[in-house]
Amino acid sequence: MFSTFELRPPMYVRLLLWLLAVTAYSVIVISVFEEYHVPESTLGDAITTVLGLAIGVLLVFRNRASYDRWWEARTLWGCLINESRNLAIKTAAFADIELAEQHHFADLLIAFPHALRMHLRGERDPLPEIEAVYPEIKQIQHRPGFVVLQIFKYLDRWNRDDTLHASIRIIERNANTLMEICGACERIRNTPMVPSYRYMAWGSVILYTLAGPWVVGVDQGWFTIPIVLLASCFMIGMEMVAETIEEPFGKEKDDLPLDRYCETIERFIRETLPAPTATADAVAG
Amino acid sequence: MFSTFELRPPMYVRLLLWLLAVTAYSVIVISVFEEYHVPESTLGDAITTVLGLAIGVLLVFRNRASYDRWWEARTLWGCLINESRNLAIKTAAFADIELAEQHHFADLLIAFPHALRMHLRGERDPLPEIEAVYPEIKQIQHRPGFVVLQIFKYLDRWNRDDTLHASIRIIERNANTLMEICGACERIRNTPMVPSYRYMAWGSVILYTLAGPWVVGVDQGWFTIPIVLLASCFMIGMEMVAETIEEPFGKEKDDLPLDRYCETIERFIRETLPAPTATADAVAG
Amino acid sequence: MFSTFELRPPMYVRLLLWLLAVTAYSVIVISVFEEYHVPESTLGDAITTVLGLAIGVLLVFRNRASYDRWWEARTLWGCLINESRNLAIKTAAFADIELAEQHHFADLLIAFPHALRMHLRGERDPLPEIEAVYPEIKQIQHRPGFVVLQIFKYLDRWNRDDTLHASIRIIERNANTLMEICGACERIRNTPMVPSYRYMAWGSVILYTLAGPWVVGVDQGWFTIPIVLLASCFMIGMEMVAETIEEPFGKEKDDLPLDRYCETIERFIRETLPAPTATADAVAG
Amino acid sequence: MFSTFELRPPMYVRLLLWLLAVTAYSVIVISVFEEYHVPESTLGDAITTVLGLAIGVLLVFRNRASYDRWWEARTLWGCLINESRNLAIKTAAFADIELAEQHHFADLLIAFPHALRMHLRGERDPLPEIEAVYPEIKQIQHRPGFVVLQIFKYLDRWNRDDTLHASIRIIERNANTLMEICGACERIRNTPMVPSYRYMAWGSVILYTLAGPWVVGVDQGWFTIPIVLLASCFMIGMEMVAETIEEPFGKEKDDLPLDRYCETIERFIRETLPAPTATADAVAG
Amino acid sequence: MFSTFELRPPMYVRLLLWLLAVTAYSVIVISVFEEYHVPESTLGDAITTVLGLAIGVLLVFRNRASYDRWWEARTLWGCLINESRNLAIKTAAFADIELAEQHHFADLLIAFPHALRMHLRGERDPLPEIEAVYPEIKQIQHRPGFVVLQIFKYLDRWNRDDTLHASIRIIERNANTLMEICGACERIRNTPMVPSYRYMAWGSVILYTLAGPWVVGVDQGWFTIPIVLLASCFMIGMEMVAETIEEPFGKEKDDLPLDRYCETIERFIRETLPAPTATADAVAG
Repeated sequence: MFSTFELRPPMYVRLLLWLLAVTAYSVIVISVFEEYHVPESTLGDAITTVLGLAIGVLLVFRNRASYDRWWEARTLWGCLINESRNLAIKTAAFADIELAEQHHFADLLIAFPHALRMHLRGERDPLPEIEAVYPEIKQIQHRPGFVVLQIFKYLDRWNRDDTLHASIRIIERNANTLMEICGACERIRNTPMVPSYRYMAWGSVILYTLAGPWVVGVDQGWFTIPIVLLASCFMIGMEMVAETIEEPFGKEKDDLPLDRYCETIERFIRETLPAPTATADAVAG
Repeated sequence: MFSTFELRPPMYVRLLLWLLAVTAYSVIVISVFEEYHVPESTLGDAITTVLGLAIGVLLVFRNRASYDRWWEARTLWGCLINESRNLAIKTAAFADIELAEQHHFADLLIAFPHALRMHLRGERDPLPEIEAVYPEIKQIQHRPGFVVLQIFKYLDRWNRDDTLHASIRIIERNANTLMEICGACERIRNTPMVPSYRYMAWGSVILYTLAGPWVVGVDQGWFTIPIVLLASCFMIGMEMVAETIEEPFGKEKDDLPLDRYCETIERFIRETLPAPTATADAVAG
Repeated sequence: MFSTFELRPPMYVRLLLWLLAVTAYSVIVISVFEEYHVPESTLGDAITTVLGLAIGVLLVFRNRASYDRWWEARTLWGCLINESRNLAIKTAAFADIELAEQHHFADLLIAFPHALRMHLRGERDPLPEIEAVYPEIKQIQHRPGFVVLQIFKYLDRWNRDDTLHASIRIIERNANTLMEICGACERIRNTPMVPSYRYMAWGSVILYTLAGPWVVGVDQGWFTIPIVLLASCFMIGMEMVAETIEEPFGKEKDDLPLDRYCETIERFIRETLPAPTATADAVAG
Repeated sequence: MFSTFELRPPMYVRLLLWLLAVTAYSVIVISVFEEYHVPESTLGDAITTVLGLAIGVLLVFRNRASYDRWWEARTLWGCLINESRNLAIKTAAFADIELAEQHHFADLLIAFPHALRMHLRGERDPLPEIEAVYPEIKQIQHRPGFVVLQIFKYLDRWNRDDTLHASIRIIERNANTLMEICGACERIRNTPMVPSYRYMAWGSVILYTLAGPWVVGVDQGWFTIPIVLLASCFMIGMEMVAETIEEPFGKEKDDLPLDRYCETIERFIRETLPAPTATADAVAG
Repeated sequence: MFSTFELRPPMYVRLLLWLLAVTAYSVIVISVFEEYHVPESTLGDAITTVLGLAIGVLLVFRNRASYDRWWEARTLWGCLINESRNLAIKTAAFADIELAEQHHFADLLIAFPHALRMHLRGERDPLPEIEAVYPEIKQIQHRPGFVVLQIFKYLDRWNRDDTLHASIRIIERNANTLMEICGACERIRNTPMVPSYRYMAWGSVILYTLAGPWVVGVDQGWFTIPIVLLASCFMIGMEMVAETIEEPFGKEKDDLPLDRYCETIERFIRETLPAPTATADAVAG
């Protein structure tokens, strides 16, 4: 299971590197203070006040927006679990079909979250169960869409065979939502925060970190370092968490455990539409 | 009714233990001040200012998010009450079925909230009425899903017998929502706050509590203790309330009274679909 | 029209009593200052700063949440007006029924808001028009649910008689919403704010009021009283408004005028489904 | 086109009158300072701090709530445009009817936004096209409801004639929304902000303005006037904007251009359902 | 592809011009300070405090509202992608039609986002594929509405021919949403922020910039310039970003990449409903 997602070092490593840089910079600034007598000035004070306000406003705003995206993504995958379950339950309750067909339909329902997960992460692992029946999927770019199309084709055939007893609209509604969830997830993945806000947030944080030791150093001497580190840790940390949860489909610690959700769906569908054979769980691998 | 939920001591006990620890720590710090002459310094002042801001931002953000989850959970159970009522009313109004069958259907409607409540709390008390009719439920992992499946099977049979006079879609919509509510509740239960925010919030609170007595102690002597206690009480209290209502399905004082909701549903359904026998209320026990 | 709702004195009376108590307390504190020389201390200052922050955070949070509930309740009754109107319009447009039956149906539509209003306020005035036709309603606990059941029974009969020409689903959707509105109103009425937040808000306000005169009195002498009164008036006032609008179905000045909404519905339904007799307005009494 | 709406002078005039009063009052206060030696006191300072906080909290809260209402009203009229367009498009696509009837139906669709606009503003201009066909509308109190009733009667007739080929539910959904929009707009118009918040906001602003010159005047002399004017301009301005956009259906500069929305609807419907005669645009006058 | 959209210089150019003006003004103010001895006064201090608060409140409020609009616009285009995909999938699954007709229908589905994009930007490039079949579109003002009308006409014909097997309502729902998206996008484009808020925001920013150098200059001399520039950069930048994302359909860096969304839709539809000929991609040009 190789993925193109983890080229960037994980968040805590990046935070540590930043803090090391801040420490080094502070040490240099304080050494300058110790060596030469820097005339006292309120310039730095004025600058950090202005920047502090800007950073406060931007960080609150940005973390709120990022968290809303993260929670929306979580809600979407929760919906996906619901709709998959409802599809399985309704198929078991309404459709008058034989076990083998039911089993193939269950394969499609299980394949959708896996296909969506890989689609969102830019991965392309094989879906063996599906490829066995629909070899053309290997050429398809948008695999979740292809799986939904096959689900709809089943529904249409059952409708025409009258095995659904006029309840097609009942089942269709849930299948329709699958594609809506897919689109909403793509929207979250493809739309970063308004770029200008990101530049302003980073710009303020960096200027603040550059000005910080000069301001604090006048009074505190070597005690400057823990103060500056604390402030940087908070500001850079908040910004980094915001950036991480803004893209909630990755594999960092704060990201959503998509693999676990896929398993939850799979387990429920297998319990509701039990397979006649035991080869089914190869899909999840 | 044994549950795995109450291993953690209740919130006010944990808060008390924290405050005791803070008091002990403050007493030690103040004793040090009294014993030795600590040179005055603005270091602590700078640190508490930085931390105070961070804590303010994080606590507001965190409590808002937790409260939103709590209120969403409340709304979901409110919906569950609505949908159960509507299902009972519509069954009474539209379905042309005999009393005994109506009674069994009412059992299923009543069993769903109980099954969901236990599912959310990790409990597994028996559902005697349901187990009498469907003994296979004892092997089922996801009991709410199983109950909904039986509800759908009733609807399907009535639809095929034409006792619903083409109004299946009217009733189905409410049954569909049952599963959606179940999934949304599971989402709230299974998704804690973004971990990094929790670490940052606790980290800031602990650092603040550690630094607090050193800063206040310089001016206030033994009066430091009530001040530090008040601030800790507020900060730790807010954080703890946020953690408690983040998981609204437990049994603490701030959690949702799920048992009462289940009874509300049961009472209404029994009034609308009266049982021919009086053994029905054994389910709720 | 007797009700169990007004045992508590109205809000402005309670606010006045609070302010009297605060004045008396301040007078005592200032007298102490005048009599004895109290050593100057920054203790009170530190305490009011900590409490002021806590109160600010809690009041903003609490008023926002309460106002959201109030507005949701208003929206729900707005929806109720809509759905009642749509039901009346659709009955007039689609159902091929004689005037007397139409009139009885209009009675049910008018009775629902009245039943819901009384249900939310814990009142039980008679509904003469409904009791004349359905005497069993006197034994029913949940009267809004009973009214909706009768509405659905009409719809079912019209559907089976084919007087609706397959448009039952069009009308049913609006009737379904009636019960959803009822459940949502009950949710708002039955779920107070998370208790811990209320305790923290009141605790902070009371501590602040107790500490206030000691802090202000050092500098201001008898001028302390207007300052402390202003601050108390704002804090206690905000908290009281929050508590009042948290339960928007009462009869205080800030609560929703449910009686007026009921009349609006009644007037529209009578205009759309005019009664053959003039005895109809006895229901509203 | 006479209306009862503009008895109040427009916002900027009221703001100007307020600022004149503030200036006059400040001049008097400063004259007193110049004439007599007022002993320096921190009383005013303490009062303005308390009031400043209260005003900040109340203004932010109030403007947010008012803006949300304004935006909701805008969204509702946006929905009205959508639903009118969809009704016109679907009538053109699905209904198998002759041009004259189509033209009358288009008249109804166009009359609805005009009737709603006048209903929300308390106006009652004639709707000549509608009155020609339905003279009874002159006695009707709730004209938008009457128009929707006629729309539903058309749909019902087409449904019974089978000119809709079972697509009545497709068209009905949009007609149903018309009445929902009407009710939601009435809700916004009829429900002012919780009265207690308004009293508290105005009370704080007036007290602040009264106390302001006494506080600032000690240090600044005649420079007090621009400072007090700036602060008043901001506070009174924010409050007035909040009050204006709270009632978004009026005719002030910040209100919604309802006339323009009505024209947009009319233009689209005439393009989609072209009239056989040219007398149609008399409705809009 | 000429457009009337880019007459205004891009955001960073406007920001730069503002900052140049601010620098020039500061230089003049500081020169005055250097030349003449300006008596120290706290007037400016008081003014910037008042204005700073006003600006903070207004900027936070304004950026939140603008960002909400931007995100809503993004969500609407995400929905458009979903609905287009679902329409294509359902057409492929349910409709029993020949390839040529399918291809024409796909042309309509692809033309809609392009027509909407141009409609929102005030552009009118040709849509060759559509104009070949429907030459009357050249006279049509509201081209997206015309495209949806043709989509509905296809659905109506298929419904009457019974090629949809009673699943018209399933497909219609998605087509209905197309028009809703169009209307919601027009609402966002046509409704700027409440004008009074814009005036107040710009007024405060300009007054603040005018007063700034006088206040800072007293203490800082020539160091005034970086401080004033930083503050201006933040305030004017925030206001400009808010203005830009308020109108998210333009072509600036922060605006939504509508062209890319159109291509995404086109690619998916061509994959799901493959064209028998290869001339299809001429539409996108």
